[in-house]
Amino acid sequence: MNETAKELIDRLSARIPAADAAKRAEARGHLDDLTKPLGSLGQVEEIAAQIFTLRNGALHRAMKKAAYVFAADHGITAEGVSAYPSEVTRQMVENFLAGDAAINVLARANGAAVHIVDVGVDADLSERAHLLHYKIRRGSRNMLREAAMSDAEVAAALAAGAALGDVAATEDVALLAVGEMGIGNTTAASAITAALTGAAVADVTGRGTGLSKEAYQRKQALITAVLRLHFPGGGSSAPNTLEVLRCVGGLEIAAMVGMMLAAAGHRIALVIDGFISTAAAAVACALAPNARDYMFAGHRSQEPGHRILLERLALRPILDLDMRLGEGTGAVLAMPIIEAAVRIYTEMATFSSAGVSEAKP
Amino acid sequence: MNETAKELIDRLSARIPAADAAKRAEARGHLDDLTKPLGSLGQVEEIAAQIFTLRNGALHRAMKKAAYVFAADHGITAEGVSAYPSEVTRQMVENFLAGDAAINVLARANGAAVHIVDVGVDADLSERAHLLHYKIRRGSRNMLREAAMSDAEVAAALAAGAALGDVAATEDVALLAVGEMGIGNTTAASAITAALTGAAVADVTGRGTGLSKEAYQRKQALITAVLRLHFPGGGSSAPNTLEVLRCVGGLEIAAMVGMMLAAAGHRIALVIDGFISTAAAAVACALAPNARDYMFAGHRSQEPGHRILLERLALRPILDLDMRLGEGTGAVLAMPIIEAAVRIYTEMATFSSAGVSEAKP
Repeated sequence: MNETAKELIDRLSARIPAADAAKRAEARGHLDDLTKPLGSLGQVEEIAAQIFTLRNGALHRAMKKAAYVFAADHGITAEGVSAYPSEVTRQMVENFLAGDAAINVLARANGAAVHIVDVGVDADLSERAHLLHYKIRRGSRNMLREAAMSDAEVAAALAAGAALGDVAATEDVALLAVGEMGIGNTTAASAITAALTGAAVADVTGRGTGLSKEAYQRKQALITAVLRLHFPGGGSSAPNTLEVLRCVGGLEIAAMVGMMLAAAGHRIALVIDGFISTAAAAVACALAPNARDYMFAGHRSQEPGHRILLERLALRPILDLDMRLGEGTGAVLAMPIIEAAVRIYTEMATFSSAGVSEAKP
Repeated sequence: MNETAKELIDRLSARIPAADAAKRAEARGHLDDLTKPLGSLGQVEEIAAQIFTLRNGALHRAMKKAAYVFAADHGITAEGVSAYPSEVTRQMVENFLAGDAAINVLARANGAAVHIVDVGVDADLSERAHLLHYKIRRGSRNMLREAAMSDAEVAAALAAGAALGDVAATEDVALLAVGEMGIGNTTAASAITAALTGAAVADVTGRGTGLSKEAYQRKQALITAVLRLHFPGGGSSAPNTLEVLRCVGGLEIAAMVGMMLAAAGHRIALVIDGFISTAAAAVACALAPNARDYMFAGHRSQEPGHRILLERLALRPILDLDMRLGEGTGAVLAMPIIEAAVRIYTEMATFSSAGVSEAKP
């Protein structure tokens, strides 16, 4: 019999090791002995210390990198929440498979493998080569009318992501970008953000991939109606996190949660992307707080809800370049910074080894 | 007979091509046709457009990268402005030559060659292999008592940097980080910033590589005294830029100015580093405004004067990671972002080629 979503989450959570404070102190001590003024590499040192800690001291000199892009459609697009037609999800999947989309280019530039996962595209892609076939349903349900997923669907999406997290570990991936493609999914991410944080709909809703002012107001009204339907008590009613994911999430978001939790269980460093990826990260951390220590925020997107989620997670974005594309692009673009931080840790001379004078007391 | 500093600057300035607005428009048009929502790659698109424009449309698929680190001592250190003894300049040069300093590690991680240039280290390094020997004087003069450089010295430092800018062009370098090492040089950068922008000394003075509160107050008082000596009319007296460089600059800062101007003349993209590198960039742009279009700000450092200079130059930093090390580290760390931007420009599919629907009007 299949596990319920709750059983799966409990099993994945239990496998995620808590960060070891002694390892973090060891990292701090080493960084302070490198030939540079104390703390002068700023966040680069923080990144290095975090990686050292999450790997429990076992640093790779060269980290194997991968990006997983989870694709799914959203029933809510029937209500007209996006500037792009729903078919674009499928078209972009084809574009990814052809190797010419932004995520392909950036991953190639930075030496990361790209894997495209169909967890819910509203098209028959069963014959496509090089696509990872985990389709659960042709799109989530229309969350304005019913829950986006049934319990069995959310469990299947979580399990699909978790299975791929295990695959990444088997393939010795050390740095993992978790991205997505799904027309309509900023609406789901906004609803998740409002439900998890209690923030106002206006503060968590952006223009997605380029809405007009009218369409933007309609999107806010829709999200308000969606939240009222599923969580009539309002944001302060603090609904169960899994219910938030099931009712107002999406298949790709659930799969991302599953991958993040499974990969953290394997001590893989997770590079979170933009708003939707961070909504998945927020769900993952609410379900399994230990997961937070395995996460890096690749960038801060222009979506207003993203800032709220990053603050909630206390994740400082590595890049802040006004990107709002998704696909994992912001995560992959940040990878060289993380790799550079690891090399600073492993390759730089110490004061004693280099014969450089330290600062006057 | 040697050129005066003024003659050299005039010659270098005249060689820097103005950016072509038509090329920039062509870049914008191409970026808007790529398979992504309009403008959704944010600053990455701006970087790509700037590179396309400064190269006048001739993009390299892979850009050859180099970092030049200009080292010199500063007479002002006799007044006790730094937390580190002056010998550290020489020690760090040895550390660079050994290949184990932060700049070496980061350049290696990102595929950039590192060149160390002695323009004024207060030590005899004439026997050192792999060091570029352009020493003009063993340190600049104490700017609290006299001008940091004579006209002949500033001309020689500018010429050294310009010669290396020509070398970089000969070697087909397309992306050039310009960094420095010099105990005491934040004092020079602060004085330059105050003199060029009219900003208050308190606003342009930081703690350098880690000063105590007392030493920090002494540093401010010293900079105030230095400015009063050389520019008694105050910041508003708008002294001649070359005189600012000569009186309160440094040998490595003048050499960086020369390299930036020469390299811009060869359409090389310049990646500016932190506060000192940006002080050189500000001098370069004041002397030759066309140089600005060849510059990228690698990062924003924690030095308070850096923010003021970046605003003055209207340069948006690519990274903002609380670094304050110098050496070119922030510039080299930003290189993968610039390279990725170029690859987005050259490799991404267009809407028509990929068969992806555009946004609804």
